[in-house]
Amino acid sequence: MKEVKVLTKVLKANDMIAAEIRSLLDLHAVPCLNLMSSPGAGKTTLLEKTAKLLSGSLSLAAIEGDVATSLDGERLNAVGIPTVQVNTGGGCHLDATMIKDALQNFDLDKTDLLFIENVGNLICPSTFDLGEHVRVVLLSLPEGEDKPLKYPAMFLNSSVLVLSKVDMVGWNVGTLAASRANALKVNPRLKVFEVSSTEGTGLKEWADYLRALVVEKKRGKRD
Amino acid sequence: MKEVKVLTKVLKANDMIAAEIRSLLDLHAVPCLNLMSSPGAGKTTLLEKTAKLLSGSLSLAAIEGDVATSLDGERLNAVGIPTVQVNTGGGCHLDATMIKDALQNFDLDKTDLLFIENVGNLICPSTFDLGEHVRVVLLSLPEGEDKPLKYPAMFLNSSVLVLSKVDMVGWNVGTLAASRANALKVNPRLKVFEVSSTEGTGLKEWADYLRALVVEKKRGKRD
Repeated sequence: MKEVKVLTKVLKANDMIAAEIRSLLDLHAVPCLNLMSSPGAGKTTLLEKTAKLLSGSLSLAAIEGDVATSLDGERLNAVGIPTVQVNTGGGCHLDATMIKDALQNFDLDKTDLLFIENVGNLICPSTFDLGEHVRVVLLSLPEGEDKPLKYPAMFLNSSVLVLSKVDMVGWNVGTLAASRANALKVNPRLKVFEVSSTEGTGLKEWADYLRALVVEKKRGKRD
Repeated sequence: MKEVKVLTKVLKANDMIAAEIRSLLDLHAVPCLNLMSSPGAGKTTLLEKTAKLLSGSLSLAAIEGDVATSLDGERLNAVGIPTVQVNTGGGCHLDATMIKDALQNFDLDKTDLLFIENVGNLICPSTFDLGEHVRVVLLSLPEGEDKPLKYPAMFLNSSVLVLSKVDMVGWNVGTLAASRANALKVNPRLKVFEVSSTEGTGLKEWADYLRALVVEKKRGKRD
């Protein structure tokens, strides 16, 4: 029973720091998205494409979480997104303290939109509030259509679903309709994007959604 | 610091139960493989194909771990593998206690080979000994060739690597050679199989390996 008590205490402390982060981001009118998925669902590739679509008009920034290496952080820096790499050294998720520390490296007054790319894991990150405004889960088609049913917390605790690698439809993989239906069965309120980062499918809708988030947040600050 | 102490205590208790399990399996000459991977790398499909290849000659059994649902357990039962489904209810890995409990449902004297299909997670399961004899990590080609570098513990703590979905070579995915090279960079002792469960590639080599494990374990018992 002791473990349970300690975990509860850790989660409460995390939530307090997450609330601080959210207040700070609100003060600077910076919407923040927390991207979560299995390893290899295409989080980094989606952010690379997002940079190309938005970097002319918006200042993006990213916090990149990985167990090891700075490979993904280097990819984002290479497309012009100022990125802080956080290595968890074996840890299976990011927590609010890591985000608070990473945020000290950004000038939030010069940032329009912040992405957090979480550690690739469809389970543990779902229970840690990082102070984000929007939780985004990516599900890539090759993972199979049963994943929302088998890993429900991640889909229940997210508000946006990106169905990725949709160009792989027709291969020996899960079907798009069933992946979408199973996710909506777990959480009917999910806003769904169908995206192929390699072929460009759905990227305009995704970019429009991000632009609207920024406009809405800046308007909220002025009101 | 308190959390660290508790985790250490939990891991030690787990290791003691795992040692008990390994002794029990040795007593009955039942080799046990712990299959681990990201969600959707093809663990269940590989076991379905394994059943078709071996069920005439060997008695298989499986313990199926999932966060939720009995979908995978039903799939294995349908191909004639007696399977106990373990639901972790949010937990991100199987532990030795779950395996010990599940084992009470099998007649080990009538079992030649036991599979444990772990929860889909490339991080947490790698640190929990389940009493298995062989740790197998699956890496599916669409996940990308950088995964062994980004999630090193899983590859370091396994002795067998199954590169799965190799029929997807040529799609917009990681390359086979780089996936293999990165895994061997992390752990040069990995025994590697290249498999496509849907097309049948590499399944004969995999089945031959499993048959040899059974022969070796039975010989060990007689000696």
